[in-house]
Amino acid sequence: MTDAPMTAPASTATAGEVLARYLTEQAGNFLRALPQAVGEAGARPGALPSLNSPVGGGGTVELLRAVRRIGGALHTYGSVFEPLWAQESRAELRWLLNLLAQEPAYLRRSARLLSALDSLSAVAPAGEAGGPGMLAGHQGAPKARALLDRQLTLARTRAHSTVLQELRSARLHALADRMTLLVGETPLVEPARGRAGEVLLPQAAGAFGALDSAVQALPLRRASAAYQGDALHRLGGAGAGPQVPQQSRPAPAAAAGMDADSALAADDAPWHRVRILLKRARYALEVCGRPGGELAELDRVLDRHQEAADAAVTAATAARTPRITPATAYVLGVVHADQRLEVEAARFAFGGLWPDLPPSLVDGWEGPRAQRMG
Amino acid sequence: MTDAPMTAPASTATAGEVLARYLTEQAGNFLRALPQAVGEAGARPGALPSLNSPVGGGGTVELLRAVRRIGGALHTYGSVFEPLWAQESRAELRWLLNLLAQEPAYLRRSARLLSALDSLSAVAPAGEAGGPGMLAGHQGAPKARALLDRQLTLARTRAHSTVLQELRSARLHALADRMTLLVGETPLVEPARGRAGEVLLPQAAGAFGALDSAVQALPLRRASAAYQGDALHRLGGAGAGPQVPQQSRPAPAAAAGMDADSALAADDAPWHRVRILLKRARYALEVCGRPGGELAELDRVLDRHQEAADAAVTAATAARTPRITPATAYVLGVVHADQRLEVEAARFAFGGLWPDLPPSLVDGWEGPRAQRMG
Repeated sequence: MTDAPMTAPASTATAGEVLARYLTEQAGNFLRALPQAVGEAGARPGALPSLNSPVGGGGTVELLRAVRRIGGALHTYGSVFEPLWAQESRAELRWLLNLLAQEPAYLRRSARLLSALDSLSAVAPAGEAGGPGMLAGHQGAPKARALLDRQLTLARTRAHSTVLQELRSARLHALADRMTLLVGETPLVEPARGRAGEVLLPQAAGAFGALDSAVQALPLRRASAAYQGDALHRLGGAGAGPQVPQQSRPAPAAAAGMDADSALAADDAPWHRVRILLKRARYALEVCGRPGGELAELDRVLDRHQEAADAAVTAATAARTPRITPATAYVLGVVHADQRLEVEAARFAFGGLWPDLPPSLVDGWEGPRAQRMG
Repeated sequence: MTDAPMTAPASTATAGEVLARYLTEQAGNFLRALPQAVGEAGARPGALPSLNSPVGGGGTVELLRAVRRIGGALHTYGSVFEPLWAQESRAELRWLLNLLAQEPAYLRRSARLLSALDSLSAVAPAGEAGGPGMLAGHQGAPKARALLDRQLTLARTRAHSTVLQELRSARLHALADRMTLLVGETPLVEPARGRAGEVLLPQAAGAFGALDSAVQALPLRRASAAYQGDALHRLGGAGAGPQVPQQSRPAPAAAAGMDADSALAADDAPWHRVRILLKRARYALEVCGRPGGELAELDRVLDRHQEAADAAVTAATAARTPRITPATAYVLGVVHADQRLEVEAARFAFGGLWPDLPPSLVDGWEGPRAQRMG
């Protein structure tokens, strides 16, 4: 799936024209994908048949794409929309995003954790790449696998039931009506009459400024040296910037008394915040018709960061299941550490990619380029 | 502690003169350090008072230094010594090395594992570096710490008793007599009359050739990219060179039925072998009076590799202790994975240092420099 080609805003176009064109296209995508997504959800009776058939197929994927983009545009270019309408629309889009994203997230987490376990347990056949793993022959590995599989299947089934229920709700119908309105009739206010370049670029630059500030606060210098163990241990602390509260993070099903999860969550929170700001900046660029391939790559890295962090929480949570054997718990400890290593690898990858962001992506934003890496 | 300054072999000196001078000096170090080491061992009643006072202090350290260097010279320059004498001497030096190295190794392993656990469990005081760790507040952490501490203290105490016993043995006295003979009366054979440059350099080059071949067989390209997870999982396999049998590795106290340890041991073995060959090459250079600072750095990296690999085995072994709680086992799994990450980090560091070996270190060795990295 490639990004739809965007046309650069003609120098004579107004901000309203550029935004209306973008939102008309995205709302059209939303309305085309919605019945498909509903059909896909209905065709899946409960849990999913296999890890190889991605949840929701084309319809759900397209719907999520449109939801993210419309929400991003409404946020970044907020000053040109009727405020109450934009605020309500964003809230409803966020609700649909959270609803639809859960089931695929559980599926990806299953695939991630079970394949990590298989890799850790692998015994290489002669002459084949990917040799003996850290848990090869460990008696706890099959039990840990079965436990994770059972817990994630249960969570996925629950998420699926919720989706099935809400896809028939009045709330979704109301949101679809909003999107229908958006096609051709975007509720704009006065600033939308200004020239696109003058109105939109400063707001896009604002999105980049927010992203840049959040990245500056990351312990990027430590992340840029391999094996500094930031994500595994030696977290946060002095010089790593202020701790961002854990506002934008889905709450893990954490048992009480496990400070470890919350300590890691506090360490991960600034990275998860950057992920959201990066998506916003990426969609802000799209509206202005600029290619954002570099941002798409960073976006993927931070998605990986988020998924590994969530998978680590799942492993830690599974280890608190009553009556498991020490061998099972040991394997879950290894899996947890392995996922935290993936978190660290994603930070390392981010630290390597971020400084290469071409200045052309951020021109219009006034911050001096030379200071970007701090 | 810096290496003793070595004088370059004068162009007119014979191989025998150069070797005799080197061995006289090292045997003198041996004989001076021996009574000190015996006194230090006797002064320690059983287990050691604290992690901050390194086992054996100056005497044991100096004795180990001399033992390694004499053994290395006898091996690398074997053709100039009386063969039976050299063979017996090397066997006795190896015995003393294994005897003396164990207790400090257990002490270092305690320090490594307990500080890793403390780091993983750390809750950062405000404004202090090294923040909340992965196991902060985890109920299993104190139990896992106590278990590792207990098991390693026991192993160390046993090693200490063996040292105390053997330091009074006839075997040690006989070895001391051999070293006394070496001072001034090295048992040389015919080739020792040749010029030092003509006799010694080809043999030193042989030691480098063996090192180079062993390094070529390492999966260095994978180790040179961070986070490829070689040591953690995805081990060995096609293209990683032939598996070296686990000959030069101290057998871990592994319980039966744990293939994981042996799978990792097979993966680690070529690296442990390189460590030994690297020490030999380093001491061979010393004999020729060449500085080997770069080799000393690589040597330290591979020592770290070995120690992390052994510590990982200790964590895995501790997890098999009967009647531990799942929480304790979980923490030991995390600690195991953390040590395997250290193994991987050491490989990464080695992969970064090896190609920078200056050609001047290996001139005299005929292998083409351009092919060294494979």
